Amino acid sequence: MGRLFGLFFLGWASMACVPAALAEDGYDLWLGYRTVEADRVQAYRPHVTQLVAGTATPTQAATRAELMRGLEGLLGTAPATTDSITQDGAVIVGTAASSPLIARLALDTRGLGPDGYLIRSATVDGQAVTVIAANQDIGALYGAFHFLRLLQTGQPLEHLDIRETPRVKLRVLNHWDNLDGHVERGYAGASIWDWHKLPDYLDPRYTDYARANASLGINGTVLNNVNSNALSLTPMYLEKTAALAGVLRPYGIRVYLSARFSAPIEIGGLKTADPLDPAVQRWWREKADEIYKTIPDFGGFLVKANSEGQPGPQDYGRSHADGANMLADALAPHGGTVMWRAFVYSHEQPDDRAKQAYSEFVPLDGKFRDNVMVQVKNGAIDFQPREPFHPLFGAMPKTPLMMEFQITKEYLGFATHLVYLGPLFEETLKADTRQHGKSSTVAKVIDGSLHGYAITGMAGVANIGADRNWSGSHFDQANWYVYGRLAWNPNLSSQAIAEEWARMTFSNDAAVVAPIVAMMMGSREAAVDYMTPLGLHHLMGRGHHYGPGPWISGGPRADWTSVYYHRASADGIGFDRTASGSNAVAQYAPAVAREFGDLHRVSEEFLLWFHHVPWDYQTRSGRPLWDELVHRYTRGVDYVRGMRKTWDGLEGRIDPERHAQVADFLAIQEKEAKWWRDASIAYFQTFSKHPLPEGYAPPAQSLEYYESLEFPYAPGNG
Amino acid sequence: MGRLFGLFFLGWASMACVPAALAEDGYDLWLGYRTVEADRVQAYRPHVTQLVAGTATPTQAATRAELMRGLEGLLGTAPATTDSITQDGAVIVGTAASSPLIARLALDTRGLGPDGYLIRSATVDGQAVTVIAANQDIGALYGAFHFLRLLQTGQPLEHLDIRETPRVKLRVLNHWDNLDGHVERGYAGASIWDWHKLPDYLDPRYTDYARANASLGINGTVLNNVNSNALSLTPMYLEKTAALAGVLRPYGIRVYLSARFSAPIEIGGLKTADPLDPAVQRWWREKADEIYKTIPDFGGFLVKANSEGQPGPQDYGRSHADGANMLADALAPHGGTVMWRAFVYSHEQPDDRAKQAYSEFVPLDGKFRDNVMVQVKNGAIDFQPREPFHPLFGAMPKTPLMMEFQITKEYLGFATHLVYLGPLFEETLKADTRQHGKSSTVAKVIDGSLHGYAITGMAGVANIGADRNWSGSHFDQANWYVYGRLAWNPNLSSQAIAEEWARMTFSNDAAVVAPIVAMMMGSREAAVDYMTPLGLHHLMGRGHHYGPGPWISGGPRADWTSVYYHRASADGIGFDRTASGSNAVAQYAPAVAREFGDLHRVSEEFLLWFHHVPWDYQTRSGRPLWDELVHRYTRGVDYVRGMRKTWDGLEGRIDPERHAQVADFLAIQEKEAKWWRDASIAYFQTFSKHPLPEGYAPPAQSLEYYESLEFPYAPGNG
Repeated sequence: MGRLFGLFFLGWASMACVPAALAEDGYDLWLGYRTVEADRVQAYRPHVTQLVAGTATPTQAATRAELMRGLEGLLGTAPATTDSITQDGAVIVGTAASSPLIARLALDTRGLGPDGYLIRSATVDGQAVTVIAANQDIGALYGAFHFLRLLQTGQPLEHLDIRETPRVKLRVLNHWDNLDGHVERGYAGASIWDWHKLPDYLDPRYTDYARANASLGINGTVLNNVNSNALSLTPMYLEKTAALAGVLRPYGIRVYLSARFSAPIEIGGLKTADPLDPAVQRWWREKADEIYKTIPDFGGFLVKANSEGQPGPQDYGRSHADGANMLADALAPHGGTVMWRAFVYSHEQPDDRAKQAYSEFVPLDGKFRDNVMVQVKNGAIDFQPREPFHPLFGAMPKTPLMMEFQITKEYLGFATHLVYLGPLFEETLKADTRQHGKSSTVAKVIDGSLHGYAITGMAGVANIGADRNWSGSHFDQANWYVYGRLAWNPNLSSQAIAEEWARMTFSNDAAVVAPIVAMMMGSREAAVDYMTPLGLHHLMGRGHHYGPGPWISGGPRADWTSVYYHRASADGIGFDRTASGSNAVAQYAPAVAREFGDLHRVSEEFLLWFHHVPWDYQTRSGRPLWDELVHRYTRGVDYVRGMRKTWDGLEGRIDPERHAQVADFLAIQEKEAKWWRDASIAYFQTFSKHPLPEGYAPPAQSLEYYESLEFPYAPGNG
Repeated sequence: MGRLFGLFFLGWASMACVPAALAEDGYDLWLGYRTVEADRVQAYRPHVTQLVAGTATPTQAATRAELMRGLEGLLGTAPATTDSITQDGAVIVGTAASSPLIARLALDTRGLGPDGYLIRSATVDGQAVTVIAANQDIGALYGAFHFLRLLQTGQPLEHLDIRETPRVKLRVLNHWDNLDGHVERGYAGASIWDWHKLPDYLDPRYTDYARANASLGINGTVLNNVNSNALSLTPMYLEKTAALAGVLRPYGIRVYLSARFSAPIEIGGLKTADPLDPAVQRWWREKADEIYKTIPDFGGFLVKANSEGQPGPQDYGRSHADGANMLADALAPHGGTVMWRAFVYSHEQPDDRAKQAYSEFVPLDGKFRDNVMVQVKNGAIDFQPREPFHPLFGAMPKTPLMMEFQITKEYLGFATHLVYLGPLFEETLKADTRQHGKSSTVAKVIDGSLHGYAITGMAGVANIGADRNWSGSHFDQANWYVYGRLAWNPNLSSQAIAEEWARMTFSNDAAVVAPIVAMMMGSREAAVDYMTPLGLHHLMGRGHHYGPGPWISGGPRADWTSVYYHRASADGIGFDRTASGSNAVAQYAPAVAREFGDLHRVSEEFLLWFHHVPWDYQTRSGRPLWDELVHRYTRGVDYVRGMRKTWDGLEGRIDPERHAQVADFLAIQEKEAKWWRDASIAYFQTFSKHPLPEGYAPPAQSLEYYESLEFPYAPGNG
């Protein structure tokens, strides 16, 4: 780079200050690194005068680049890079192997594992320093992001003594992205993977994706849809996957692929995909060998088998264990993992859909290979606004169970509803399975401590797309964020994470942070209220899942209708899952089953999930059930109205571009919340025959109107 | 906006100067308004000290905002806005009606029409001023963009005396965008129209789209695919279209819709779409009334009828005129236009596909209503890298013919090939139809001067998508640009436009401009060379049109194969369209027909388009045909290699982000150019049986290899 380039580049620097560059479009996520307030700059500068960081490996180089970028942004100037400390305030980052300075400090990094790190205030040769130390490069990168987060969230840099290790080993995103660029249940534009231009063109966005994930500790990504395409496993696509893996590797992210179970037939020329057939087993072994030749750290396979029309081992009379183990054997020599989904149900099976995964998988406990994880959705139906925890958690002590959360808001208003999912995730993780006495929480199942799992994992169905702001809305970035933070430590508080995110993303101004966190924390309960209060579930439009559809019936499968779930009739509403009904409660530990099964003990959050209740049943508020339903639907809409008011009050404290988009989306949310409320009330009123309680507005339109609405091109359809 | 906001906004302004903001991602197109060199700033500032511009209408406000934005960017500071001139150097923009100052100047704006403008150096009350004057607001906006372009391209601001009026009345983009967000033949990501969030959310991108088009004078946009969906005409979608129209209106852009001919059946509940059926006529009249109620300046309908499976009047034994006139009658009371495509051909019709549009449409000349235009592709096949001009041009003196160019590079390497289409467009426009003697150019047909058309128009199939850089690549922005400039004035030079674009987009540095323009100007000929030299055409992969497929045969339609077009055999290659063959030459004026039909007079560019020629035929270079073919294929690849070298030499003079992407894409182009060459040579060699001439490398792979390649998910498939 000669002199001319330098001069030229100065020109570019000055150009960046024209007004057009002011736009805050959300691309930077929580890594905007905007300059902090002047007094904080003054307070921080003495602690970041110099940076000692290696560049011997790509991960080290990424770590150093991120610290330089972040500190330059946050403080206005980057620290000097150096190998030898000459003043107070050096930041030293690395491992004992990569940094002689860190080796000399002889820090106790035992127990940190490969991903953990220390951040500690220390003294080196009489100089005050901050040390970010780890056993492996990736731990140092995670520590660097943590250090930046301290500045981003306004924390002091004195007397640091932080020790962090992730509680969960595999922290994975699941992209439901098709090879044609469509994202199933995606509301943020097309897939970020430009398969056509891969492997030759590596969009810089891939690197920013890796940075964002590494900042949270996410260390795996499944690139393609669980409703998978065998072509992903052909040499042409593996070459593309290898190119992506090369971009993600420095950031500690391993790539996985969804494997189509029938691939040996579709691309292998075999007549069968029977997992006990030696030719099939050989085909998968050779496929694994082929993959690892170009992607030595390939993570493994995610499999959706015998579910919603996908092929699987049961097509050959074999069990899920037979199928998973065959793939596990192929991956084992290379250290790969099979993530086998427990989201299975069959409409040929007359039993309550909520029970089927448990019935199929519990008998298989202990029959899976060591490198198989069973991936279980948080609830037994399908990512509803609220579900009780899945009965499989705690019920498979010999099989590592992996959590599957859905970050993308398939059932929670797509991208335009402000719904912070932290409380949903936290509610599930804190739920007590009672399988080993009290405090047998789902979090302890997932982090392995309850059953002593050798491997642990959490998956989140990504909400990421080609939209400029990645997630379709600014607030949906918080759902990616909270998922990543909880995957690192399932015991964190969703409220603390919301605050952290708001500070990093918007502002450290308390007058901004407090109202934003308050909006976020109540937003999921509001969505439950205006969509599916009191334990109702699965009442959305058919196929696209956009908007209310409590009247949905008929079609190919009863368990894809709404009437299957709400069972409304003249005598009441709700799905009896007690002993008098489907007895799904019996799949829980006795203490939990007794609570869920008892109309008088069950939390009203799950009332109609487990019980069929008369319209006049008196709820705990004193209101009859019908009135309580109307009350909650209305309360949900009112909450959204309140969020709009709060947000309007933040005008001037939020950059205009993001403020305007959020305001527009909140207006859409209010309109759609009202639509959910009105359509639901209009429909259920045909059964309850009750008038609306006094003071509650009737639906704005007729039931026929709501039933007539069609949305053939709603986004994300599968 | 209170004091707090002001302070806050300053904070944001300073933030924009962090390094991350430097990224040049192409979003700004040719409107980046980066600060010009210091000496030019000095030279320009005395001419832009003050700005006198109204804000009484949305168009006036947009004009003033654009001038402020542009001048602030280009000069570092915005001029003072004022109503009364107090010093030399004021810029006065507006119309006599909107600006008392301009009214006083009593400029001769006769003949400028609604869209034209003057830019003139003048004196007002002894002060030197620059006046941008027009008859209508929109003309003033166009003039403002022209004025900014003077600064962007380094022109002097002294002694200005510019008078501009567009030569073409309807300057329209055609978006082949589906309601599900897929763009047929789109290589720049998904559609920019977020139908799902419309009408409630108006993406700021829509405004930037309008700005970019207005900067070129584009004044119409067809929002949806010509392979259209009747749902676009339902109230739900019309409400969305109206919202978009509201964003585009201040920028002088009218919206049009592609109308599905069978809509009266599909959404109207009628049993027929027969254009002579009174109920059908009434349905369309009422539909037009409904549209104009919410979109009073709706432009009209674009129709693809009885072509490639689309419904049309011939389904009922009626003519294209019958169909077009029915729609025209519905639109006429509101001032709308029907743009009826002449791209029709039928595989049931055994005649040469190249002849069918002419055969169907010439007999209809004079039979269309006054508000019908017939939209004709530049050539008779389909947007090939090179085609002779369409024989319809000049052959329908009583029917306004509208040009249809394809900006998106369906047949020219998608987004990753650097192919500047200016020379292609210019070649067509300058082609002499000889229908009224010499100089009966296509341009004169299009601008109406040859036949005295009352309305004139040009359409470009857009290359715009949700990709950050809009067009899929930085250089494809130039194709949008050159289309718009030629629609304004079909007589402009594509080289001058390339230079203008390069200056506005990259730099005024001659060491940058000259090599970039040189690369661009040869790039289309190179694509012809490596894809379809010597008049070959339609040899691409089936369906997706990605990569070479000269071996394509069979399938549903002969005219969708390659062998239909190249007719290679042991005795030679090429489509005999002379009197001994299909006699397509006879559709041209006699002088042209004689030239095209004569093997010794036809330009070698069209040799194999019109003639079947033996492999040993001696071409004008002295080389036998086979050697000449190999030579041209190779020359095309060599040109791309040369572009890579040129581009590498610009490192440091182009911002790093755009430089890197272009370099990566050029590498892809070289690889794919070589693929085209090698596959084509390998295939045609099976007929020529000739060895490669000395010094020419053999294909890198076997023909079987090339034939085996499959790309089921290549982008843009219809």
